[in-house]
Amino acid sequence: MIAAKVIDSIWSTRKADSLVGLKFMLVEVLGGIDAGRLMIAADTISAGVGERVIVCSGSSARKMLGRDDVPIDAVIVGIIDEDCTF
Amino acid sequence: MIAAKVIDSIWSTRKADSLVGLKFMLVEVLGGIDAGRLMIAADTISAGVGERVIVCSGSSARKMLGRDDVPIDAVIVGIIDEDCTF
Amino acid sequence: MIAAKVIDSIWSTRKADSLVGLKFMLVEVLGGIDAGRLMIAADTISAGVGERVIVCSGSSARKMLGRDDVPIDAVIVGIIDEDCTF
Amino acid sequence: MIAAKVIDSIWSTRKADSLVGLKFMLVEVLGGIDAGRLMIAADTISAGVGERVIVCSGSSARKMLGRDDVPIDAVIVGIIDEDCTF
Amino acid sequence: MIAAKVIDSIWSTRKADSLVGLKFMLVEVLGGIDAGRLMIAADTISAGVGERVIVCSGSSARKMLGRDDVPIDAVIVGIIDEDCTF
Repeated sequence: MIAAKVIDSIWSTRKADSLVGLKFMLVEVLGGIDAGRLMIAADTISAGVGERVIVCSGSSARKMLGRDDVPIDAVIVGIIDEDCTF
Repeated sequence: MIAAKVIDSIWSTRKADSLVGLKFMLVEVLGGIDAGRLMIAADTISAGVGERVIVCSGSSARKMLGRDDVPIDAVIVGIIDEDCTF
Repeated sequence: MIAAKVIDSIWSTRKADSLVGLKFMLVEVLGGIDAGRLMIAADTISAGVGERVIVCSGSSARKMLGRDDVPIDAVIVGIIDEDCTF
Repeated sequence: MIAAKVIDSIWSTRKADSLVGLKFMLVEVLGGIDAGRLMIAADTISAGVGERVIVCSGSSARKMLGRDDVPIDAVIVGIIDEDCTF
Repeated sequence: MIAAKVIDSIWSTRKADSLVGLKFMLVEVLGGIDAGRLMIAADTISAGVGERVIVCSGSSARKMLGRDDVPIDAVIVGIIDEDCTF
């Protein structure tokens, strides 16, 4: 997984049927040589803009939704505690 | 997923039988340290050149087609709304 | 896999239900052109801060847990022996 | 997928039994910030040195072979038409 | 796959039970813009230090072992012939 900061919402009206109802957030990788990399992650735990989150990528992202037919490759799996410094 | 801009169509006459009928688009990653990365993504939602899209990669790309036997690793899953700024 | 050094613990109270009870560590890639890349890896073998570890990524990370429903994409699979120089 | 140019053949006598009979080609990524990245891709459609090809990576590469037991992670899935400019 | 050079053995006494008996090698990517990237790959074909090898990554790496429960994401699938220049 990677640590990232939620930057913004991404809105898409024309999209795969299986994605309807999913929230998408633009996140930016925090720290290390990948800092500043942008990703779009599905969010099912109501992460807010500015929060630091844990993003899971690849086939494992589908596991967060409890179904295997959705074309997503990144999902927010946790919100990093505010008092967690790193 | 990543945000990308559709650059062009990619034409391939000699290709895997299972890819016949699929449209392939050259897309360029938008923003962040990966800006300018090029990818070829399958397109089933009629994205046009110049549009900003959401691209899903890896095994999840196959989920967009509703079949699991096609050798693709990237697909356009949504078109980003024109008034979505980020 | 990659060789990495354990940097810190990552705490997340609000997270996927399936992640409850899992320990997450921030690790930094060691050596090569990826040196300094940060990742968050699940840890089930009690790696300590400062130890050098082997991190497995992707769908294979789920194999470490012996279950396939957990949204993780990186896990510590081994601790590199202290007298192993490289 | 990525667009790449076929550079050379790769010969390996000592290899996994399941790879016997497969042709491997060295390809170089074309365009974008990944230009110049080298990969080894299996080839089942007789791509020639110098041709521009579409390379599919990851688990999807195995779909090209119609079997799921072969340890390959990249395969040439199409040859880009000569008159396709991008 | 990628072409890499075997650099060293990696020793890990405390590791996942399913990894016991597997040999791990540190390899360095050869050529292209990824030259110098380090990876740890499982080795089941007795590659020696200094040899050039083909490394397969991701879920496909597990196919080399003929079992699907092992947390590895990279494996040496072939040794590049000495007289193969590239």
